[in-house]
Amino acid sequence: MSVVVMKFGGSSVADAEKIRAAAKRAIRTRRAGHQVVMVVSAMGDTTDHLVDLARQVSASPPKREMDQLLVTGEQVTIALVAMALEEMGQPAISLTAGQIGMVTDDVHTKARIKTIDVRRVREQLDAGRIVIVAGFQGITAGGAMTTLGRGGSNVTLVAVAAALRADVCENFTDVDGIFTADPRIVPGARKIDRVSYDEMLELASLGASVLHNRAVEFAKKYDVPIHVRNSRNFRKGTVIVAETEGMERIVVSGVALKDKLARVTLRGVPDRPGVAARIFHAIATRNVVVDDIIQTVADDRTATVAFTVDLGELADAKKVVAELCEQLGCAAVFEDNLAKVSAVGVGMRGHTGVAERMFAALAAAGVNIQNITTSEIKISCLIDRDQGKQALRIVHDAFELGAKKRSRRHAKK
Amino acid sequence: MSVVVMKFGGSSVADAEKIRAAAKRAIRTRRAGHQVVMVVSAMGDTTDHLVDLARQVSASPPKREMDQLLVTGEQVTIALVAMALEEMGQPAISLTAGQIGMVTDDVHTKARIKTIDVRRVREQLDAGRIVIVAGFQGITAGGAMTTLGRGGSNVTLVAVAAALRADVCENFTDVDGIFTADPRIVPGARKIDRVSYDEMLELASLGASVLHNRAVEFAKKYDVPIHVRNSRNFRKGTVIVAETEGMERIVVSGVALKDKLARVTLRGVPDRPGVAARIFHAIATRNVVVDDIIQTVADDRTATVAFTVDLGELADAKKVVAELCEQLGCAAVFEDNLAKVSAVGVGMRGHTGVAERMFAALAAAGVNIQNITTSEIKISCLIDRDQGKQALRIVHDAFELGAKKRSRRHAKK
Repeated sequence: MSVVVMKFGGSSVADAEKIRAAAKRAIRTRRAGHQVVMVVSAMGDTTDHLVDLARQVSASPPKREMDQLLVTGEQVTIALVAMALEEMGQPAISLTAGQIGMVTDDVHTKARIKTIDVRRVREQLDAGRIVIVAGFQGITAGGAMTTLGRGGSNVTLVAVAAALRADVCENFTDVDGIFTADPRIVPGARKIDRVSYDEMLELASLGASVLHNRAVEFAKKYDVPIHVRNSRNFRKGTVIVAETEGMERIVVSGVALKDKLARVTLRGVPDRPGVAARIFHAIATRNVVVDDIIQTVADDRTATVAFTVDLGELADAKKVVAELCEQLGCAAVFEDNLAKVSAVGVGMRGHTGVAERMFAALAAAGVNIQNITTSEIKISCLIDRDQGKQALRIVHDAFELGAKKRSRRHAKK
Repeated sequence: MSVVVMKFGGSSVADAEKIRAAAKRAIRTRRAGHQVVMVVSAMGDTTDHLVDLARQVSASPPKREMDQLLVTGEQVTIALVAMALEEMGQPAISLTAGQIGMVTDDVHTKARIKTIDVRRVREQLDAGRIVIVAGFQGITAGGAMTTLGRGGSNVTLVAVAAALRADVCENFTDVDGIFTADPRIVPGARKIDRVSYDEMLELASLGASVLHNRAVEFAKKYDVPIHVRNSRNFRKGTVIVAETEGMERIVVSGVALKDKLARVTLRGVPDRPGVAARIFHAIATRNVVVDDIIQTVADDRTATVAFTVDLGELADAKKVVAELCEQLGCAAVFEDNLAKVSAVGVGMRGHTGVAERMFAALAAAGVNIQNITTSEIKISCLIDRDQGKQALRIVHDAFELGAKKRSRRHAKK
């Protein structure tokens, strides 16, 4: 009997009615002849509410206690989903991370899964039950509660599917799947049928945040295809899979915009070995997450080192940079009005002229490119934030992503 | 170092401010040189809210899932209390039932504790931490969550205190202790300093419900004195202890009223062996809880069997009695307007004239006694509900319970 693992996020289990709808959907799959595991998140804004409670009693809650608190959110949902299933006549059992032996390391609030003992789940499935697993949570070997960090429920989904060697792994959200661009900005954006793990990783890190990167990395590692689909309809969504040959014919799969970026430029940095390492070590120590790094040699003895950060990180970056400038004798410039538009596609590897096409389209529309970064499957342009949305639409059009499927395959090998 | 176990009920941890107050109180005890364990309940009406959620998805939630759901209430509180303590500079750690090895049987929603492995608690206490234990919950040997039923957090308090051989076991509530009568009905009621387990059991079953009987029975079994006190002040409350010689001088410790009683009378019951057993077996099978039983022989061949039940049980009682009457050929009479006033005291054992004094006082006030039941340490009179509160005040006065301590010791040996 094939195993289907279905994950329902917080908005899909936000109240009794939605819980019943998720339960019905699982029963439908069960009655189609599959063994069903459901992975569920905390209801609606429960986690925010718990975080708020914690803030009311502590300015900096110990992380162990934060995890002890937060895991209750998912535990409430699993019990309610099991009750809803039983009420509909479907045998069911809810299991916490401790009960399925989802063992993690002890890095509280962002633990990593080490092992899953799925014997318990298999027993229950073989007894005809739907098994409901609490997402986002784990347990240390010593029995402490942990949480898996942002996007943690999707990590649970993939981990459970991998451990069970599931045939299908479905991630239910409130959108129809992954789109060629954010439909709120690009009205002609089209749903993508299949996308590779690597493309999804680039798209997610660029702001198309249906799935957090850790879940996708996990899925790639264990080769678990994830079907992202809408919990409110029965349409096919987007399947995230390993790269296949057919994908190479599609040069660009999607475009994405990250529109709250800032740039820090350090001028007059002594050009000697180890300086860059020292700078970025200092920045990492303060937990400032750096987006892209651009280094250029200014003259014989000094270099210009620049990097971009999320706007929200700028205040922290300023503090550490001020200290660095004092130590190194350099000067800093801060810009807080930038955005980055990117085109992503595994097909780019085998094709030339892709970057060119993107630059030309932006230039024709009068969008000034302030910086360019590339990876094997991605081209990114740093631009003014004011032009961000316009630039996204231009690049989307340039690669004909909104047109019918046939015309996306414009590249000939 | 002495160990103090302090229990805070739902109303004493209902919000952030109250949680901080409870934390401060524990720190005060810690700084006085004791090792401190806190046992806490779910915040305010959290449990009711969870039960309501369950009802929204299921008319009859499976008990295992109900427990999986309900234990989250206490888990939230322990984490928040630990955070509040740490915020105040006091090292602390929260522990669930699973984490302290509080193993119960698998009777969900009213489990009984089998063993506690307190090594974990001792380790943490010895490391200088305040340990916060989740009340009301347990875990089966197989790892399923259980709850201990009504009054469960007090059972946890006593069980933890017994297992740790604690020096002090404090139960914080929103009243000053146990009173000679309900002060809302008897304005002259006085706080009792010491009361025996047996007296407390009788008083609790008669409606003075500060502590549920299961907790008191547990305390009696393991000889754990419980100090019931007010979380809003530092006054001494009532200590519930094993019977001591001094107590015997106090004939009546308190009076209590149970004022929602109904009586079922079966007339013409065949007077042959085994009939009463058959009747009460049928009643027990339907989970109707019987208060008192009164049986009298009516003539040579039939008997009259009467029993009292809580008013809330009357509907169920009527159903089973209707079936019984059909089978046995007897007739039933139902009365739903009764109350029971009782006097309780271990000193009664060695003294005569106690019942007499109570009957005489009630008669003088024109209160008609419909039935009398007694135990070694209790005398109860069944009366009209309309006269219940008046009767309570009369009996309280008759034993001079409102007067100064000295005059309670009216009996001479």
